[in-house]
Amino acid sequence: MIRLFHVPLSPFCRKVRLVLAEKKLEVELVEERYWEKDPDFLRRNPAGKVPVLRMDGMTMSESTPICEYIEEKYPEPALMPPNPEARYEVRRLVSWFDDKFHQDVTSNLLYERVNKKITGEGYPDSRNVKAGAKAIRFHIDYMAWLLDQRRWLAGDAISLADFSAAAHLSSLDYISDVDWHRSQTVKDWYAKIKSRPAFRAVLADTVPGFPPPAHYADLDF
Amino acid sequence: MIRLFHVPLSPFCRKVRLVLAEKKLEVELVEERYWEKDPDFLRRNPAGKVPVLRMDGMTMSESTPICEYIEEKYPEPALMPPNPEARYEVRRLVSWFDDKFHQDVTSNLLYERVNKKITGEGYPDSRNVKAGAKAIRFHIDYMAWLLDQRRWLAGDAISLADFSAAAHLSSLDYISDVDWHRSQTVKDWYAKIKSRPAFRAVLADTVPGFPPPAHYADLDF
Repeated sequence: MIRLFHVPLSPFCRKVRLVLAEKKLEVELVEERYWEKDPDFLRRNPAGKVPVLRMDGMTMSESTPICEYIEEKYPEPALMPPNPEARYEVRRLVSWFDDKFHQDVTSNLLYERVNKKITGEGYPDSRNVKAGAKAIRFHIDYMAWLLDQRRWLAGDAISLADFSAAAHLSSLDYISDVDWHRSQTVKDWYAKIKSRPAFRAVLADTVPGFPPPAHYADLDF
Repeated sequence: MIRLFHVPLSPFCRKVRLVLAEKKLEVELVEERYWEKDPDFLRRNPAGKVPVLRMDGMTMSESTPICEYIEEKYPEPALMPPNPEARYEVRRLVSWFDDKFHQDVTSNLLYERVNKKITGEGYPDSRNVKAGAKAIRFHIDYMAWLLDQRRWLAGDAISLADFSAAAHLSSLDYISDVDWHRSQTVKDWYAKIKSRPAFRAVLADTVPGFPPPAHYADLDF
């Protein structure tokens, strides 16, 4: 049995969940209050972060190495293109979303509004929220620019890059922080990825104290 | 011709330099004052970071995707093991050093002491320096624990994980921030990697205003 220790709105956990679901690998989800630094959990992952995946007799951390492992071990349906140049582009965009988008946007919006409350760190810092709201516009424009040239973010086939981006955007959409009016191209891309069966579980998530907006799970948003 | 836009003490740039040198790929180095946000440079890399690598007709950013590309395109000598489980472990440790070690140690020591001065951001914050000096001990102990079970960090063959770790440690060693007395095992590992021909160019680096200590380039430190 595959078991994932996660928190529902973490984009890094969502990326792993989406990739597992796309590969039709069933997973048991265990919510992990990682900020409480439970010794059992720290034994599983000395970095003290989620996701942690138990699979094939291994206990794995770090979402991108986990996704690369799943892709190598369960190559169908493919989420990485065959040639090195195109694979580079997928990995570059995964890093773009997990590093830059995460730092510019996710940490300023989701972590300020949700994580701080859940972990008892206090109220959102409005300067950070403002910075995040400004930065997401730049990122949506960048996505629109990419999608004007390609069917999916990294090329003409769906890839890990799309799931990495969709993991961040879906978490932000849960707290109504994505302005879907900014780009029809990006909205169309999200509608396509949102309607995949792999997305269903993510759309069914609910976090106590943070009810999702009505459009969150609506495929026709 | 391969061209790398870099700064000498950046561990991410060093990782790419080490991997290129290990593969015997010649590279022209161009120092890039990325913090001045030169429009030409931002055109090359909208994330505004180094390293940026021009190679095979592509302009690439993000050090790990770059290294994966080089590994796929120039597989000899191998810096990735053949099976998915071992490859996962390499990628996990690359992330460990580039995310956790970087955040806990490199940004608290190197960026406080060197980058702030070079970029005109002011003086080191002594709380950060103290936190970095404390954290590096934990990381050296973790490396010693890994190296007690394996010849190299991720297994019995040298890999990207070793170059990622050595890139961070060599930059910190340049400012005398590594206590080599803490673990003979880690010191032996660094002596082995430091004596490889691929390391020569990194040991010859000098940064104006920051002369390296005598032991920095000494193979018998």
